[in-house]
Amino acid sequence: MRESHILPAARGAAYAVRAGQCATIRNPHGTQVVDTWALALDDPFDHSAMEHTRSVNSNLFFEAGQRVMSVRRRPMLTMIDDTTPGHHDTLLCPCSAEIYRELGCTGHHRSCTENFHEAIAAHGLSLPFTPASLNLFMNVPVAFDGSLDRLPPRSQPGDRVTLRAEMDLLLVLSACPQDVTPINGSARTPRDIEVILHAEGEEA
Amino acid sequence: MRESHILPAARGAAYAVRAGQCATIRNPHGTQVVDTWALALDDPFDHSAMEHTRSVNSNLFFEAGQRVMSVRRRPMLTMIDDTTPGHHDTLLCPCSAEIYRELGCTGHHRSCTENFHEAIAAHGLSLPFTPASLNLFMNVPVAFDGSLDRLPPRSQPGDRVTLRAEMDLLLVLSACPQDVTPINGSARTPRDIEVILHAEGEEA
Repeated sequence: MRESHILPAARGAAYAVRAGQCATIRNPHGTQVVDTWALALDDPFDHSAMEHTRSVNSNLFFEAGQRVMSVRRRPMLTMIDDTTPGHHDTLLCPCSAEIYRELGCTGHHRSCTENFHEAIAAHGLSLPFTPASLNLFMNVPVAFDGSLDRLPPRSQPGDRVTLRAEMDLLLVLSACPQDVTPINGSARTPRDIEVILHAEGEEA
Repeated sequence: MRESHILPAARGAAYAVRAGQCATIRNPHGTQVVDTWALALDDPFDHSAMEHTRSVNSNLFFEAGQRVMSVRRRPMLTMIDDTTPGHHDTLLCPCSAEIYRELGCTGHHRSCTENFHEAIAAHGLSLPFTPASLNLFMNVPVAFDGSLDRLPPRSQPGDRVTLRAEMDLLLVLSACPQDVTPINGSARTPRDIEVILHAEGEEA
């Protein structure tokens, strides 16, 4: 069942994934953040919830072996492989039109929020709000006083993570369009991402 | 306009608050966690969002001077006074029926999730999901590796926080029913909370 897709820089896409299937998200440049959500196919309001994910894993960050939980406390995804230094961000919001205005952008600027809604609309779904995202490859270190920073990814070209679906779900990904801050690398240039859907044990 | 209410242990309530008005939440025993949300009166789907709150404050914790932001990036609340040691939790989910089942409870157990939905229903509102809560008085320290703990509150009897509304909103509070873990104090006994609605500058 192996299927490989290119998710173009600054764009979003959603993939219907059945329980037990896997998605490998490969970062060809190593510097691209991927905002990630899951919606249960049996109920799109039962979406991935970072507050339940942190609660179940008792950790701020997302790492191999941990699970993404839904707002109704159902396991949605397990990260079964990760070649990066880890510490994927669960803390910060997806970027949005409002954030680009705060950053001084005038006119339209693509955002992870827009990408999320476009991607689920392509599957006939809509939500009246934007859930918090799991921010793969995103480097948000936290200091002792709780303050947090936004730094370029620590991953290398070709690094990848693999998520196994624990239920039938829509996996929503956004190759973050952020080009004002260095969150997508010091070059401030969004990059393409590769998404490979495959069976567990099948090489990505 | 001063109004004082008792929020009984393990129960929730919602209060319509106009922009500029204040709510002082007083902890008579010092040990009671209060799960807190805001819904915009002009659009209940524009609710308090911890991921935007952390982003705007660039901090994990919530402290005096910080703002609660909505999922559409509007300022909702500002904490203008805090007599506690600070570091209110923004990380963990409200408790729910599913969590009490995980903790081994059988039968019905009140939860902050149930309190949230009951409280907004009393104002004619419903939401098909439960937003992440701001957990006032809740003590969730974070270690260097990102792991987090659940400890009794550090506040003292009579400690209080004051929130000023930055828009017309419904302030939803739950005196957390958690009696299995020590998050509401080592006695594991939920307690009453006092809620005082007042004008800014008016003594609570």
